[in-house]
Amino acid sequence: MGALRLPSLNSFSSAAAAVIPRCHPCRRIRLPLRRITASNFSSQRSTAQKELATPSEVKDGSQKPKLQQEKDRVITPRSQDFNAWYLDIIANAELADYGPVRGTMVIRPYGYAIWEAIQEYLNVKFKETGHSNMYFPQFIPYSFIEKEASHVEGFSPELALVTIGGGKELEEKLVVRPTSETIVNHMFTQWIHSYRDLPLMINQWVNVTRWEMRTKPFVRTLEFLWQEGHTAHATLEEAEKEVNSFCSKKFSYSSNSLHFHLTNSSTELQALQMIDVYIKFAYEEAAIPVIAGRKSKMETFAGASKTYTIEAMMGDRKALQAGTSHNLGQNFSRAFGTQFTDENGQRQHVWQTSWAISTRFVGGIIMTHGDDIGLMLPPNLAPVQVMIVPIWKKPDEKAGVLNAALSVREILQAAGIKVKVDDSEQRTPGWKFNFWEMKGVPLRIEIGPRDVLCGSVVVSRRDIPGKQGKEFGISMESSTLVAYVKGKLDEVQSSLLERATSFRDSNIIDVVSYNELKEAVAQGKWARGPWSASDKDEQKVKEETGATIRCFPFEQPTGAKKCLMTGNPADEVAIFAKSY
Amino acid sequence: MGALRLPSLNSFSSAAAAVIPRCHPCRRIRLPLRRITASNFSSQRSTAQKELATPSEVKDGSQKPKLQQEKDRVITPRSQDFNAWYLDIIANAELADYGPVRGTMVIRPYGYAIWEAIQEYLNVKFKETGHSNMYFPQFIPYSFIEKEASHVEGFSPELALVTIGGGKELEEKLVVRPTSETIVNHMFTQWIHSYRDLPLMINQWVNVTRWEMRTKPFVRTLEFLWQEGHTAHATLEEAEKEVNSFCSKKFSYSSNSLHFHLTNSSTELQALQMIDVYIKFAYEEAAIPVIAGRKSKMETFAGASKTYTIEAMMGDRKALQAGTSHNLGQNFSRAFGTQFTDENGQRQHVWQTSWAISTRFVGGIIMTHGDDIGLMLPPNLAPVQVMIVPIWKKPDEKAGVLNAALSVREILQAAGIKVKVDDSEQRTPGWKFNFWEMKGVPLRIEIGPRDVLCGSVVVSRRDIPGKQGKEFGISMESSTLVAYVKGKLDEVQSSLLERATSFRDSNIIDVVSYNELKEAVAQGKWARGPWSASDKDEQKVKEETGATIRCFPFEQPTGAKKCLMTGNPADEVAIFAKSY
Repeated sequence: MGALRLPSLNSFSSAAAAVIPRCHPCRRIRLPLRRITASNFSSQRSTAQKELATPSEVKDGSQKPKLQQEKDRVITPRSQDFNAWYLDIIANAELADYGPVRGTMVIRPYGYAIWEAIQEYLNVKFKETGHSNMYFPQFIPYSFIEKEASHVEGFSPELALVTIGGGKELEEKLVVRPTSETIVNHMFTQWIHSYRDLPLMINQWVNVTRWEMRTKPFVRTLEFLWQEGHTAHATLEEAEKEVNSFCSKKFSYSSNSLHFHLTNSSTELQALQMIDVYIKFAYEEAAIPVIAGRKSKMETFAGASKTYTIEAMMGDRKALQAGTSHNLGQNFSRAFGTQFTDENGQRQHVWQTSWAISTRFVGGIIMTHGDDIGLMLPPNLAPVQVMIVPIWKKPDEKAGVLNAALSVREILQAAGIKVKVDDSEQRTPGWKFNFWEMKGVPLRIEIGPRDVLCGSVVVSRRDIPGKQGKEFGISMESSTLVAYVKGKLDEVQSSLLERATSFRDSNIIDVVSYNELKEAVAQGKWARGPWSASDKDEQKVKEETGATIRCFPFEQPTGAKKCLMTGNPADEVAIFAKSY
Repeated sequence: MGALRLPSLNSFSSAAAAVIPRCHPCRRIRLPLRRITASNFSSQRSTAQKELATPSEVKDGSQKPKLQQEKDRVITPRSQDFNAWYLDIIANAELADYGPVRGTMVIRPYGYAIWEAIQEYLNVKFKETGHSNMYFPQFIPYSFIEKEASHVEGFSPELALVTIGGGKELEEKLVVRPTSETIVNHMFTQWIHSYRDLPLMINQWVNVTRWEMRTKPFVRTLEFLWQEGHTAHATLEEAEKEVNSFCSKKFSYSSNSLHFHLTNSSTELQALQMIDVYIKFAYEEAAIPVIAGRKSKMETFAGASKTYTIEAMMGDRKALQAGTSHNLGQNFSRAFGTQFTDENGQRQHVWQTSWAISTRFVGGIIMTHGDDIGLMLPPNLAPVQVMIVPIWKKPDEKAGVLNAALSVREILQAAGIKVKVDDSEQRTPGWKFNFWEMKGVPLRIEIGPRDVLCGSVVVSRRDIPGKQGKEFGISMESSTLVAYVKGKLDEVQSSLLERATSFRDSNIIDVVSYNELKEAVAQGKWARGPWSASDKDEQKVKEETGATIRCFPFEQPTGAKKCLMTGNPADEVAIFAKSY
C-alpha cells in the first residue's frame, strides 16, 4: 500500500481542492510536517532540547512506542497494525503526548476537550441522581490500604509511595491514591452516625496513580483522570420503594435483564443504577454498543462483593473494560468500622458502592470509531462538530466567501452547535479537508464563491467518504441550515452506533464447547457460552487462550444450558475475549 | 457573652418561629448536635472508629486546631477569636474537614460547590481569552526542578517526593507537582518550533502539593486545588496591536493604573490581562475589593521576572494573596531550551507567563464576608441563593404551604436561580432560619398559611439582620417574584462589596515614615507609603513588624514622593501588612 502525499501548499488551486478525491481507506496518509495551530506536534528537537538530560525514569522500564514519530508523519493503516495506527492517530490528531516520566501522559487540548464533554454529560447525570461532588486528599496513609485484605492484595503491587516530605523522611509512607475507598471510609466514619445520615452519595473528579508496567496512552497510564462515586446506605430493605421505581423505569438497553438482577438490596440498586447511567452514556453519547454484565469472581474489584461492567469491542475486536460499578457490601465498612445507629438504636455497618469511568474511555472512542483516515468522533462528544472551510480562488472572492463563512458560523453557534471556521491562508482547502477528517470532525461545510451567489453551502459527512457523504445546495437560510445540520449530526451519531453494533454482533460467536471457544478466540472473536466451571478452569482458559471472562451479560438466553467446559448445568452464559 | 441555645424541636410553635428574634452579632450560637442532611459533621466517634490507629503523620507535625469540636457545636464570636471563628464556620457550615494526613483537607460538598462556582466563571473567561484546558502529569523528574536556579531555591524545601513505584526504589526521585512550569516547558520544547506555533496558551485545573509546615483549611494546605495557566509568546513586538486593544478597553477597577504598567511586551500584556480577569472576578463575583499590584522583588514568584497579585483584606485585617500572575520572561525557556524560529529564521527563546487561583480563595470569601452568625456568601458564588422555608402549624395547613413552596421553587428555578426548599419535618422553622443563615444563604423565603391565602411570600436578607432585612407581602406571581428576587440578590451582592470596600478603606493608613508604618501595623492596619529602599530594609520591616510588602498597587498617588524609610525619592507607594 502506497503512501498518499498530501498536496503541498502551492501545488493546488483552492477551487480544485473542493473536489479532491477522497482517501481510499487503506492508503497511508502523509501530513505535512507543519500546520497552522499553535500546539503542534513533532519529535524534531532542537539541539538545546537534545542537550537536556532525559530523566532516568524515561530510560527505566518499557520502551517508548513510536508515538513520537520521525519527520514523515504518516498514519499506519488500521488493518496493517492496529497498535501503530492507534498511536499515529493520537500523535497526529494531537490528542496526547508522552510525559517525561515513563507511562505518564500529557492530555493535549483536543483530547482533553473530549474528556470535558464526557465530564459535562456525566456530571449532570450524577447530580440528577442525587450525588454531590467533593474532594478527598490524594495522600493516603499506607496503613489504610492494608485494612481490607483483598484490597491490599489487589493494589499493593502498583502503588506509588511518597516517603519524603519537606526534606524529611516520613514516619509513615503515603500512598498516592490508586482509588479512594479507604480514605472515603475513614471520613465516612466521622460523618455517619445514624440512619438519618444515609444514604450518603458523593463523587469526585480526580487524578489517580497506578504503577502499571505496560502502558498505552489513554488505555493504561501510570496516572489517569477519572470520576469515582462512593455511596453508603443503611439497611437492605430501606430502598424497596426505590427498587420498585427503578424496575418501573423504561430502559433502552439491556432493559429487562437489569431488573432480573435486582433484589431489594440498596447497594445492588445503586450499583445497577450507576451502571445504567454508564450504559446510556456509552450508547447515546459515545455511540459505543457496550455489553453490560457482572464480572466473574476472579475479575471482581479488589474489595468488592460484586462488580458490574460495561465491555466495549474495539476495532481490533479486543475488549475494553470501559466503566465499572461495584457493590462493596460491608467489606470496607467492616474494615474501617463505618457504622450507624439504625431506627431501633442498634449499631450496624453501612452498605456501600463505588463506580468509575476514566480517561481510558477516550481510548475506547478512538478504537471503536476510527478508520484509516484517522479519528471519527461521535457528534455528541466532538469538541468541534462542524468545521467550515471557506474556498476562494481570486482575491476579489475572498471577502464574500469569508463573510458567508462567518455568518454561517454565527447561525450555527447561536443554535448551540460547536462550530469553527478554518480561515487560515497558509493551507489549501484540500489540505484542510484531510486534516479535519483526520481529526474526526463529524461534518464539514464548504463555502465557495458560487455557493455565496446561490446562498447555499456544501455539507460533507465524515462517516461517509466521497460523493455519497456530500450534499450540495443546502440553503444558508438560518432555520433551514440549522435544522439540516442538526439532522445530519443526529444521523452521523446513529450511524456510528449502528456500524459499531453490527461490527460487534458479527464478532461474537456462540459456543457450546471449549474447543469452539478456543477456535473463536483464535479468530480474534468474542466467545459467548454457558459457564458454571471453577475459578481454576477460568484460569486455564486464560492461560491457554489469552481470553478472560469479560462478563456474565445482563442479556441472557432463556432455556436450559450446559457449561461449555464441564457439561454441568449452567445458569448463565459468559463472554470470553482477549482484552486491553 | 452568653451562648444562644437554638430552640429544641418541640419548644416552638412553627408559626411563632417566623418572628424569632435575630441573633445578636456577638451572641454565641449553639447548634443542636444532629441535623437533617446526610453529610453530618461531628467529632463523636464510635468505639470501633477510635480503635482505628491514627496514622503517624497525624501525630507528626503541628497540632490539629479545634476544627473537630466537642459535643456542643458553637461558633466562637469573630471578635473574640478570629481563627477559632474561622474553624468553627468551616466545621459547622460543613465546608471542609481534616484529612488523615497532617495538613490535608477534605473539601465537603458545600465547600466544593463554592469552588465549582469559581471554576465555572473562570473557565469561561479563560476560554474567551483564547486558552485551552489540558492536563500535564503530576509526577515531575527531580532533575527538572533543579534547572531553574531560583525556582529550585524557592520550592525545594516544600516538595513531596515519590521514591518507590510498583514496589521498587526509583532510579530518580519524582516530585509531586508543586506547580508545573518545569514540566510545561519540557513539553513546550516538543510542540513549539516556529513563530507560527505562538502564542501557545493553555490552562489546567489540578491538585498541587506543597509540604507546608503551618497549615489552615483552604488558606494553606499540603495539597490544594487550583488552575494554573501557562502561555508562551514570540517577540516583544508581536503583541503591539493587542496591547493597544487592551489599552482601549474599559476597566471598572484599577483602570488607568493598569495601562500605566503596559509596555509592548507580549508577556507583560498577558500577565496583566490575566490579573485583570482575576480583579474582575474578585470584585464582581466574590464581592472582594482586592488591591492589585506588583510584588516586590523579594516577594516575586521563584523563577518569575515580575509577579502581579491581588491582595484581599480579611475580617481580621490580615492580607490574603488571592491570585497571582507572573511574567516569567525567558527564565524558564532559557533553562529548558524552549526555542522557536522567528520570521527571519533565527532561533529565539520564548517569553512566558503563568497565573493561578486556588481553593485558598474559598478561605478568602469566608474571612471577608462572614460574621458572628456564620458564613455570608456573595449571591454570585453561593451554591444555594434562595432557601425556601415552609411554615405550618396545623396539619390541614401543611399541603397548601408545601405546594406553594414547591411552586415558588419551580418559578425561581426556571429563572435560573439556585433555590432549595427545606421541607424537613424534623426541624422547626426557627432552627432552619438559623441554620441556613449560618450556612450563608443570601436570601430566605418564608411561606406560611396566611401567605398562601394572600398569594405572597416573606423575603429575608442574610446581610441585614432582623426586621430591616425582611419584606412582607411579596407577590408569588411569577414575573413579579422573579424580578424581586433577582433584584434582591443583586442588592446583596453590591452591599457585600460596598461593606467590604469601606472596611478595607477605613483600615488602610497612609504613612510617610517608618514610625508611622510601625504604628499602623501595630494597630492591625495596612500601611501605604512611598518606598524605594533596599531588600535589606524590606527584610528589616518584616522582622521588626511582621508586615511584608503586599504589593506596589496599580493605583498610585500622583506627585513627588519620598521613601518612608530612607527619605530618598520614591516612584511608588507600597502597601505593608501582616498576611496569611
